[in-house]
Amino acid sequence: MAVITLITDFGLDDEYVGVMKAVILGIDPAALIVDISHGIGPQDLVQAAFMAAAACPHFPDGAIHLVVVDPGVGTGRRLLGLQDGRHIYLAPDNGVLTLVRRRPEATGARLHWIENRAFFRPQIGATFHGRDILAPAAAHLSAGRATLAALGPPADPESLAAIEGLGGRITAPGRIRGQVVHVDRFGNLVTDIEAGLIEKLRGGGDGRLLRVAAGRRRIAGLSATYADVEAGRPLALIGSRGFLEIAVNRGSARDFCRCRPGDGVHVSARRIPVAAAGRRGRPKPRRNSGT
Amino acid sequence: MAVITLITDFGLDDEYVGVMKAVILGIDPAALIVDISHGIGPQDLVQAAFMAAAACPHFPDGAIHLVVVDPGVGTGRRLLGLQDGRHIYLAPDNGVLTLVRRRPEATGARLHWIENRAFFRPQIGATFHGRDILAPAAAHLSAGRATLAALGPPADPESLAAIEGLGGRITAPGRIRGQVVHVDRFGNLVTDIEAGLIEKLRGGGDGRLLRVAAGRRRIAGLSATYADVEAGRPLALIGSRGFLEIAVNRGSARDFCRCRPGDGVHVSARRIPVAAAGRRGRPKPRRNSGT
Amino acid sequence: MAVITLITDFGLDDEYVGVMKAVILGIDPAALIVDISHGIGPQDLVQAAFMAAAACPHFPDGAIHLVVVDPGVGTGRRLLGLQDGRHIYLAPDNGVLTLVRRRPEATGARLHWIENRAFFRPQIGATFHGRDILAPAAAHLSAGRATLAALGPPADPESLAAIEGLGGRITAPGRIRGQVVHVDRFGNLVTDIEAGLIEKLRGGGDGRLLRVAAGRRRIAGLSATYADVEAGRPLALIGSRGFLEIAVNRGSARDFCRCRPGDGVHVSARRIPVAAAGRRGRPKPRRNSGT
Repeated sequence: MAVITLITDFGLDDEYVGVMKAVILGIDPAALIVDISHGIGPQDLVQAAFMAAAACPHFPDGAIHLVVVDPGVGTGRRLLGLQDGRHIYLAPDNGVLTLVRRRPEATGARLHWIENRAFFRPQIGATFHGRDILAPAAAHLSAGRATLAALGPPADPESLAAIEGLGGRITAPGRIRGQVVHVDRFGNLVTDIEAGLIEKLRGGGDGRLLRVAAGRRRIAGLSATYADVEAGRPLALIGSRGFLEIAVNRGSARDFCRCRPGDGVHVSARRIPVAAAGRRGRPKPRRNSGT
Repeated sequence: MAVITLITDFGLDDEYVGVMKAVILGIDPAALIVDISHGIGPQDLVQAAFMAAAACPHFPDGAIHLVVVDPGVGTGRRLLGLQDGRHIYLAPDNGVLTLVRRRPEATGARLHWIENRAFFRPQIGATFHGRDILAPAAAHLSAGRATLAALGPPADPESLAAIEGLGGRITAPGRIRGQVVHVDRFGNLVTDIEAGLIEKLRGGGDGRLLRVAAGRRRIAGLSATYADVEAGRPLALIGSRGFLEIAVNRGSARDFCRCRPGDGVHVSARRIPVAAAGRRGRPKPRRNSGT
Repeated sequence: MAVITLITDFGLDDEYVGVMKAVILGIDPAALIVDISHGIGPQDLVQAAFMAAAACPHFPDGAIHLVVVDPGVGTGRRLLGLQDGRHIYLAPDNGVLTLVRRRPEATGARLHWIENRAFFRPQIGATFHGRDILAPAAAHLSAGRATLAALGPPADPESLAAIEGLGGRITAPGRIRGQVVHVDRFGNLVTDIEAGLIEKLRGGGDGRLLRVAAGRRRIAGLSATYADVEAGRPLALIGSRGFLEIAVNRGSARDFCRCRPGDGVHVSARRIPVAAAGRRGRPKPRRNSGT
C-alpha cells in the first residue's frame, strides 16, 4: 500500500473523483488516497503542470501521483508513467509533467507507456481514462502487483509532449521574463519565476533594487512576508512554493494588477546609486504603484 | 470496517460533512469514509438520485452509502435502509433511491425502516438526521454491530416514495424523450437516457441516423469521444456513466444549448435515405446547429 | 496515531491543504486526517472561531485540531497549543480559539506556545506556517513523539489574543443582542446566540412570545424544524449547532433578510397578553414580515 495523490480538473461537485477512488479501493483497499486539487481550471495544462511540480515532491517516498487533466482523452495521445528516485507519476502525455521532469530528482527518471490492459479496468470507455486506466494502474502499483516497467514499453524522453515557454528566464542582463501560472484563493499571483533565478539576477547581494511589473502595476523590492506592508498594499515575495508571487496584504493582487494566468511578469534589477539623494536633475524616486 | 460513502447537498464550506465524519469515527474508528459529492444542488433529489445510481455501484462489495438530501428533515418522512446483493444504502424515504432501486442488482433488495434508537445518537435534533441518525447507523453497520434488519421493521416496497418521470422512455416509434439530470463541471449535459435505450432505437445497426435535440439546438449523430469534433463544436455521446450526454469539445454544452437540469431532451432516429441526394423537391439537409 | 482535523481558509482549489497532508503523512503515516472545512472566508477569524467550537467537540477523544486562519503569518504573532480534557488544538494566537476556550471542557485547559524547532520542518518559510510548523507539530503529537508541553513553554491565559464581542448577550430585561457569524450553504443565518441564552430569556416556560429581528425582517416565535412553516416562509429555530438560526423553508434567509456575517440579530421576549384581542386602542398585531 502507498499514498496515491490526485490532481484533476474534475471539480468536486461531480462524482468523477469519487468513482476514481472507488476503482482504486476495489483493487487496493489499503491505498491511502489524498486529494491535492480537483480545482485545476478545465483542461488547464499549465496550471496542472505547475501544481504537480510544486505539491507532489512534499509527499513521502513511494507516493504515486495521478495527474488527470486530459483534453485529448479518446484520441491517439498516449498515457505516461514516470518514476524518479522517490515517486511515480501517471498522466496523459500532453505536457502536464513538463515541470516535474525538470526537477533535479527527475534526472534519469524511468519512463514507460501505460499500455498493458492487464492493469486496466475490463471495459475501457472513450471518455474517462482516469477511471478506466490511470486509477487501476495506480492501484496495481500501490498494491505491489505491478511495477512501472510492467505497465508498458519504455518511452523515449525525446518523444514526449511538452508545454513550451513554461518557466521564467533571463532575457537580457538584469531582466527576467516569466508569467502568471496560477492565481490562488487569496488573489495572489503565482509566477513561474523560481527563487534561484531571482538570486541570480541580484548577484547574491542586496546591492540591486528589484522591480516587478505585472499588468499595469509596478512593485519595488522584495518582501519577506505578506504583512511586511500595510493592509491593502502590494508586495512581491518568494512564496511558499519557492516561486515569485505578487500579493496584496489582506487584499487581492489579481484585482490590483488585473492579471490572470498567462499574463507576463517582468523583473528587473539595477544597481542602487550611491549617495544619489539630493543631486540636481536626478529623476524623482518612482512611487510604488500601490500607493 | 467498511467503506462508507457520502452524497449530500451540504457543500464543503460548512462543517456538516466533517461533523458526520466525526460521528462515524466515534463509533467505527476503522471506517474508510469516501466523499462522492457534497455538491448536489440544495434539495435537488433528481440530481442525487442520478448520482447515487451512477457512482455507488463502482465501489467494492460491502460498501455503505449515505445519501443525505433531505428537505423534509424533521417532518414525518421516514428513513430507509436498502441492501442489495453488494451494498447497503441509507437515505430519507423521499425518492432519492428511485434509480438505485431500478438497477438490476436491486431486484429483491431488502428494505428496512431506520427506527431503532439504539443505533442513533443519544440526542436527536430536528434538523440534522444525517448526523444524528444516518451517520451513526452507518457506523454501527460498518463496525459489524448492527445488521440492516436490526435497524428497524421491514419496509413495503409499494409504500416507498419515488420520483416520478425519471428515466428516458420511448414515446413513439423512433423517438425517445428524456431530460437533463445533471450539468457537470465541463458544462456537459448529462441526460437520463440510458445507452441501452439508444441501442433499441437504432435497432442494433448503423442504418439509422440519430438526431438529438436539447434547448433550441440539434445535433446529428453520435460521437465516440469529445475530441471527435473540432474544438468548439457540439456532439452527443454515451458518457462515462452509460447515459446520453451532450457536450461541446473544449467548450460548454450548457452555454451552447442554454439548458439546465429538468429541461427535456429528445432523440429521434430515421432510416438514412439511399441515394437521396439531389432529388428535386427534397428539403435541404439540415445544418448541424453547431456550425 | 490519532485523528487530525483541519479548518483553514485555504479553499480546495490550491494545493495548500494537500501539502499540509503530505507533511503530516511524512511524519505520521498512520494519521487519519479529516477535513472540517477549508471554506472559511479568507482571514475570517470570527467564522473560524465559531466553526472550531461547533465542530471539533464532535470528534472522538484524542483528536488533534489544526485551525489555520492566519493573516499575521510571518509577523510576531505566536502559535498556540491548547489541550483540554479530550482534544488538542493548534492555531495562531489571533483569537481563533476564543470560543473553544469558552467551552466547559476547556476550563483549566493546558496552554503552550509552539516554539520547539525540533518539531518543525527543517526549513521554515515566512508565509506558510500551517505547513512548516503546525502540520509537523500535529503529526509529532499524533505519532506520540511529542507532548503538548514539549512543544514550548506554558502560555499565560491572560496574555492570549481574543476576539472581542463574540457571543450573544442579554442587553436589557427581555432582550438579547447577537450577530450573524456564518451563512451556510442553504442561506441559513447562523448566529452566536446560544440555545441556553434563549431559554433564559423565556424563563423556562412558554409564556413569552419571542421575536427575532435580523436586517429589516422580524420573525415571531421559534420553530422546531425547517418544514414547520410553508415553503418560502421564514422561521427562527435552534439549529443543529445549538445556536439560534434564521432560515427560510426551502429558501434562503440570506436573501430574505439581506444579512451577512457581522450583522446584528436581536431577540426580544414579552409576556403574551391574556385576552388581549379586541381591546380598543391596542395596536394591531404585527404581521410576520415573511408574509
